[in-house]
Amino acid sequence: MLIVKKFGGTSVADKERIFNVAKRCIEDYQKGNDVVVVLSAMGKMTDVLIEQAKEINPNPPKREMDMLFTTGEQTSVALMGMAMAALGVPAISLNAFQVQMHTTSVYGNARLKRIDSERILNELEQRKIVIVTGFQGIDKFDNYTTLGRGGSDTTAVALAAALNADACEIYTDVEGVYTADPRKVKNARKLKEITYDEMLELATLGAGVLHNRSVEMAKKYGVQLVVRSSLNSAEGTVVKEEVKMEKMLVSGVAADKDVARIALIGLKDEPGVAFRLFNHLARHNINVDMILQSVGRDNTKDISFTTNVDSADEAIEIIERHFKEYDRIDSEKNVAKVSIVGAGMMSNAGVAAKMFEALYDEGINIRMISTSEIRVTVLIDEKYVERAMNAVHDAFALGDA
Amino acid sequence: MLIVKKFGGTSVADKERIFNVAKRCIEDYQKGNDVVVVLSAMGKMTDVLIEQAKEINPNPPKREMDMLFTTGEQTSVALMGMAMAALGVPAISLNAFQVQMHTTSVYGNARLKRIDSERILNELEQRKIVIVTGFQGIDKFDNYTTLGRGGSDTTAVALAAALNADACEIYTDVEGVYTADPRKVKNARKLKEITYDEMLELATLGAGVLHNRSVEMAKKYGVQLVVRSSLNSAEGTVVKEEVKMEKMLVSGVAADKDVARIALIGLKDEPGVAFRLFNHLARHNINVDMILQSVGRDNTKDISFTTNVDSADEAIEIIERHFKEYDRIDSEKNVAKVSIVGAGMMSNAGVAAKMFEALYDEGINIRMISTSEIRVTVLIDEKYVERAMNAVHDAFALGDA
Repeated sequence: MLIVKKFGGTSVADKERIFNVAKRCIEDYQKGNDVVVVLSAMGKMTDVLIEQAKEINPNPPKREMDMLFTTGEQTSVALMGMAMAALGVPAISLNAFQVQMHTTSVYGNARLKRIDSERILNELEQRKIVIVTGFQGIDKFDNYTTLGRGGSDTTAVALAAALNADACEIYTDVEGVYTADPRKVKNARKLKEITYDEMLELATLGAGVLHNRSVEMAKKYGVQLVVRSSLNSAEGTVVKEEVKMEKMLVSGVAADKDVARIALIGLKDEPGVAFRLFNHLARHNINVDMILQSVGRDNTKDISFTTNVDSADEAIEIIERHFKEYDRIDSEKNVAKVSIVGAGMMSNAGVAAKMFEALYDEGINIRMISTSEIRVTVLIDEKYVERAMNAVHDAFALGDA
Repeated sequence: MLIVKKFGGTSVADKERIFNVAKRCIEDYQKGNDVVVVLSAMGKMTDVLIEQAKEINPNPPKREMDMLFTTGEQTSVALMGMAMAALGVPAISLNAFQVQMHTTSVYGNARLKRIDSERILNELEQRKIVIVTGFQGIDKFDNYTTLGRGGSDTTAVALAAALNADACEIYTDVEGVYTADPRKVKNARKLKEITYDEMLELATLGAGVLHNRSVEMAKKYGVQLVVRSSLNSAEGTVVKEEVKMEKMLVSGVAADKDVARIALIGLKDEPGVAFRLFNHLARHNINVDMILQSVGRDNTKDISFTTNVDSADEAIEIIERHFKEYDRIDSEKNVAKVSIVGAGMMSNAGVAAKMFEALYDEGINIRMISTSEIRVTVLIDEKYVERAMNAVHDAFALGDA
């Protein structure tokens, strides 16, 4: 069996944890499996690198930032190679150049295009554990790129697809996918299984377990994922195409605090305004999420949208420079999204209403609403997030098995 | 003019120094020159990486060690790229993969075989300052390698040769090449010029300014070097083929404390013994320096040799495992080499005698002697090094201009 195992930064944060991961991989290896390990940068290393960069240049070129970031995973994989050698097991570490992980050229947010499997298969053939840098890639000009948040998950899934792996295990600091964040919702319950689509909504909405791109890619290539803990051997949650489970309307509640709301007041109420606005943002790779447009009045309208809080300042700058068709621009960073997700929602009316009712009962004001077939999201004040999650979790009785 | 400038680890140890280096490079750039900068890892970063590795594995695989080491220079060049951007100058950092610096596969001590110039010339064409990682390379299997001590100098010289550069400037924390280490010999004097051969002997013998491989390569490809300070704009020392200067017998005195002496007692006095011994060491890439063989007596003989102090334990282990033809093995790490170097020595008798006399006057015992056409080296107790250097420096009146 060929197993791809991915461990995040906290799982390799120090010597003890590095050896824990090494031992887990060796267990599988010694059962005769081929093992490929994908690692992120150690603990807070990425933060340290950002700090180091900002000290030199508060606005560092993204290409050079990626050149700096990629040292993080390379450090992890080299140390893991040494740990496995210390345990007497042949292992080899490989970075994006050595594997040849080809991506687009969008520094800081590149997309994987193609992973060569030759070198890895070669090393596996020689019965080595292969340790691969997550998060990083190279573009067609041989520049380093990084995949953005949660990029190591994407690396793992893409590798599993490229190598036709029998399993892809994503190790995290939680035991699996829960009906809500267990740190915030007391009676949150671990799910045994979840569909790609539900996971996708949860990932996008800040459940924080898996990154959306990795789930998208898993869905596209039919890679069955297991999300499990790096700290114990509990079973985890399987993410796959179809789930035979309790007929639940809602699978989970998620929250995302890394959100900012930007509002443009006094736009001309004419066709093309929204297109021009969002086109400018898209051209600068600013991801926009919820969009709300007011009904026109006095020949003007307002548009509000949400974006990642890290992109908010850049988004405002771009709007001020390139899109001048408004009276006033407002922004708020103390907002958060709370969402419910469930494949069962599609065929059921009243789910959204039930969520709104739960929030109303708590006296929480809803600022924006956005829905998909299997999701309802509301934007609220950040300070109410945990109360909102608990209220919604209770309203749908998600804690009951 | 195309200028290659190399800065060592202390020159990029912190923010202030990084900007100093950036400014020096930009000065040349703004005069219309093409500038290629070669950097080492920052300050003590290499030591930190070694420590990190040893914590995981006291005897880490050399391949993984190189994988770890190469993050050091990559960090330096990325931060330098950011510093130059902060100063408004277009710059790009490149590592061994991006340049394609091909080396042999001897991890930790690889030799450069070929440097591709295409990418660098391309970036220079676009009027960018090109910042290249020193010390590192890739082998034909796309593994990272490192060039061993002083490897960044070699990178700089090789780049200057490959790019047909007009100048190759090696920036250090001293102002140039001195008649002796100014920290140890009070009236040491800076040389204006020195030949490759003299520099080669000085480098090999631990003058600590330039690495021998870099000088060998400079000689081979006729790259004229300038050794100068990164802290001021003093003129430095030019290293070239022929020097028209004061007819001095001796150009300088050098010392090397990183030496160990290994003695094998009671070898059979028969042909092939020395060959077998040193063949084992060579096959394990242990560099041996001075070799002394006693005259045979009672059908046995002794062989002593020196090696780098870091290789001593490994050398002993190799001898004990593979070469068992001796009675006893001794080793000493508290020894040092002191050498005098001078192209003028060749045609002059009595130079060695004068050195021995100076040491005798100080009561310093000579443990081993080795000579070349332009060098005399003695092995002495480490504790006498500075006294020996001063005595020899005075004996040849090297302080007088």
